[in-house]
Amino acid sequence: MALLSPSRRLRRTPFSDGVEAAGIKAYTVYNHMLLPTMFRSLEEDYHHLKQAVQVWDVACERQIELRGPDAGRLMQMLTPRDLRGMLPGQCYYVPIVDETGGMLNDPVAVKLAEDRWWISIADSDLLYWVKAIAYGYRLDVLVDEPDVSPLAVQGPRAEDLMAAVFGDSVRAIRFFRCTHLPFQGKDLVVARSGYSKQGGFEIYVEGSDIGMPLWNALFEAGKSLDVYAGGPNLIERIESGLLSYGNDMTDDNTPHECGLGRFCNTHTAIGCIGRDALLRVAKEGPVQIIRPVEIAGDAVPACDRYWPITAGGKVVGRISSAAWSPDFGTNVAIGMVRMTHWDPGTELQVSAPDGIRQATVRESFWN
Amino acid sequence: MALLSPSRRLRRTPFSDGVEAAGIKAYTVYNHMLLPTMFRSLEEDYHHLKQAVQVWDVACERQIELRGPDAGRLMQMLTPRDLRGMLPGQCYYVPIVDETGGMLNDPVAVKLAEDRWWISIADSDLLYWVKAIAYGYRLDVLVDEPDVSPLAVQGPRAEDLMAAVFGDSVRAIRFFRCTHLPFQGKDLVVARSGYSKQGGFEIYVEGSDIGMPLWNALFEAGKSLDVYAGGPNLIERIESGLLSYGNDMTDDNTPHECGLGRFCNTHTAIGCIGRDALLRVAKEGPVQIIRPVEIAGDAVPACDRYWPITAGGKVVGRISSAAWSPDFGTNVAIGMVRMTHWDPGTELQVSAPDGIRQATVRESFWN
Repeated sequence: MALLSPSRRLRRTPFSDGVEAAGIKAYTVYNHMLLPTMFRSLEEDYHHLKQAVQVWDVACERQIELRGPDAGRLMQMLTPRDLRGMLPGQCYYVPIVDETGGMLNDPVAVKLAEDRWWISIADSDLLYWVKAIAYGYRLDVLVDEPDVSPLAVQGPRAEDLMAAVFGDSVRAIRFFRCTHLPFQGKDLVVARSGYSKQGGFEIYVEGSDIGMPLWNALFEAGKSLDVYAGGPNLIERIESGLLSYGNDMTDDNTPHECGLGRFCNTHTAIGCIGRDALLRVAKEGPVQIIRPVEIAGDAVPACDRYWPITAGGKVVGRISSAAWSPDFGTNVAIGMVRMTHWDPGTELQVSAPDGIRQATVRESFWN
Repeated sequence: MALLSPSRRLRRTPFSDGVEAAGIKAYTVYNHMLLPTMFRSLEEDYHHLKQAVQVWDVACERQIELRGPDAGRLMQMLTPRDLRGMLPGQCYYVPIVDETGGMLNDPVAVKLAEDRWWISIADSDLLYWVKAIAYGYRLDVLVDEPDVSPLAVQGPRAEDLMAAVFGDSVRAIRFFRCTHLPFQGKDLVVARSGYSKQGGFEIYVEGSDIGMPLWNALFEAGKSLDVYAGGPNLIERIESGLLSYGNDMTDDNTPHECGLGRFCNTHTAIGCIGRDALLRVAKEGPVQIIRPVEIAGDAVPACDRYWPITAGGKVVGRISSAAWSPDFGTNVAIGMVRMTHWDPGTELQVSAPDGIRQATVRESFWN
C-alpha cells in the first residue's frame, strides 16, 4: 500500500486528534475528508467490532441542510422515495437520482422539522446538485453544509456505552429514528443507525468544539466495555451486504439495479426529477442487479478495480468489493450480475488479479 | 504518514500500471481518483522536475464535456470571465462561481468548437453543478464526463520529449493554446499548459486503451532526456504561486480574494450566475487576499490544516499550503491575509504546529 500525502484539502475532522492518538494506520478519503479505515489490522478491527464496541469518526458523512418553506418540495425532487408519510424524527435511506435515473448519492435523510432536513451524504459533492436545482427552480430554501460531524458508536455493546454517556433514554430509540439528547449543554441529534449490522448509533455532533470532549467521554465511559477506535470495516460491511457508493454503484446505475427498488415509489413520488426515466425500469425491472457473491479459494487481494464476472467465457457482470471473511471462511464479495445469471446458486467465474476463480451468486451472506 | 486503503471508489487511471512500475510511494485523492504525489522523495522529485522532464498521471483532472447548441451559453453561466472573444483552440483559466460568488472550482476550459467544450476540473464534483444548471434552465446541451485522461509532460526538456513523440509541430503550440496531434491513429488534443512553472504540455488522452501505449512511448523516447515519472510537486507549485482548490480556497471565497480578479470581467460576463453577487466585490475590492508568505526558521511540518496568521496577537489570516524550499533556502507558503496586513514586506506571525514563527508577506517567490 502507498502512503497518503497530507494536505489541507483532505480535511481533518473534529475527532482527528483522537484518531491519531488511537494509532490510526490507514485512511481513505471521503467527501474530501479523512475517513479512518484501519487501526490494528483489518481482521483485528473486524473481530473487535463484532464482539465489543467501537467509536467511529464518520465526520466525512457531511450534512446538507435544507431549510425554509420549499425544503420539503426540494427534498422530494431529489429522490424517487415517496416522502409524504415521513415524520419529524424519522430517518429515511433515500436514493438520489438525476434526470436519467442515475444515482448521484445514497444518503440518509433526517427530517428535523417540516421545513428543515439534513441529508447525510455518501461520497460525492451532492451539495452542488442540490444548490443548482434550488437555484434553477427559484426555490425558497437555504442549502448549505453546516458544522455537523457524525460520530458513530457501533457494536453489540453500543447501547450500553451510549447509555453510560447519554442516559438510559437512548435504549428507547428505535431503528432509523432520532431524538435530541443533551451533552455538555448542547442538544445533539442521536439516531439508531450506522454503517454496520452490529447495531449502534450515530451522533450528529453540531459544533466542532465539542468533538473531542464527546470522543473522550465515550472512551472514558467505555473502559470496562473494551471500547476502541474503529471505522467502517470492509469485511463486515460486505458480509452485511451494505453497499458503498462509488465502489458498488455510480451515476451509471439506477436504484433498481442496486437492489434499492424497495426505496423507490416511482408512481407516487410526484416531483422527483428522475421519475420519468425510472417509470419504465420500475415497470419492467432492471437487466442487471447487485448480488452478494462468494468467491472460492484463498484470500483475494484488495479489490481496487472492477473484476470481470464471466460465464462460459462471456462477461456477465463485475465484482466491485471483495474481502476474505474469517468468520465465514470464504471470500465475500459484492457484484453486479446480468439477469441471465443472477439467480442465487448460479456458478460463475471471477477474473481476480491472481487468476480465474470459481464463484457463486448468493441470496445474502447474513441470513 | 498513514497508508491509503485501496478500493474501487478511489479510481485507478489509464496510467496506473506505469505509475506503479515507476515505484510510486505516495498518492493523494483528487476527484475520486488516485493522483501520484511522490516517487523518490518530495525533494528529489522537485530537483528533477526543475532540471529534466517528468511525465505526470493527471487523469484526475477529469473533463466535463458540454456539447450542443446551448454549450456556449451554459459555459458563460458558470464563470465571470467574459468568453465572447474566445476562439476554438484556446484554453482559458476560468473561476467557476455559485450564485453568491463563491468558488466551486477553478478549471481550465478548452474550447474545441463553437458548440463543444471541455472543462478540465480541479477537485470537486463540478459535473453535478453543471448538470443541474442545464436541467433547471432546460438547456439544449449534453453534459457528461467523457473517457478523457490528461497526461502532463513538464520540465525544461518537455518540448524535446514531446517533439520526439509527436514531431516538431509541438514546438509551435503557444501557451494555453491547443491543437490536434496524431498518436497511433488517434487525434489527441495537446495543449501547452500544466500545473508547474517549468514549462510543458498536457495531452488529453481520449480512450483509456491508448493510455499505457502513450506512457511507454514517452518513456522510451525520453531515455536520453532523463525522463521520470512525477506529479504536481508541493514545493514547486508553492514557489510558483500556483493555487490549489480545496487547499488555498473553497466555496467560501470569491475569485477576487484569490487574486483572480483579472479573470473576472464581471460587468460584461452577461449571464454569469454569480454576477450580481460579484459586482460589489469587483467595485470595492476584497477585504482579504491570497499572498505568498515566507515563513522563517527550519523546515515546517506538513500543512494539513489552516495555520493562523497573527499580528500583535490578533488573527489576520491563515496559511493553507507550506513547504521547505531547497532552492530558496526558506519556507514558502500560501496564505489568505486581511487588507490591513497584506502589503508585501509586512511582518507577521504564523502559528505552526511546532510553535510561533516569524513570517513575511511577499509579492511573489518567482520574480
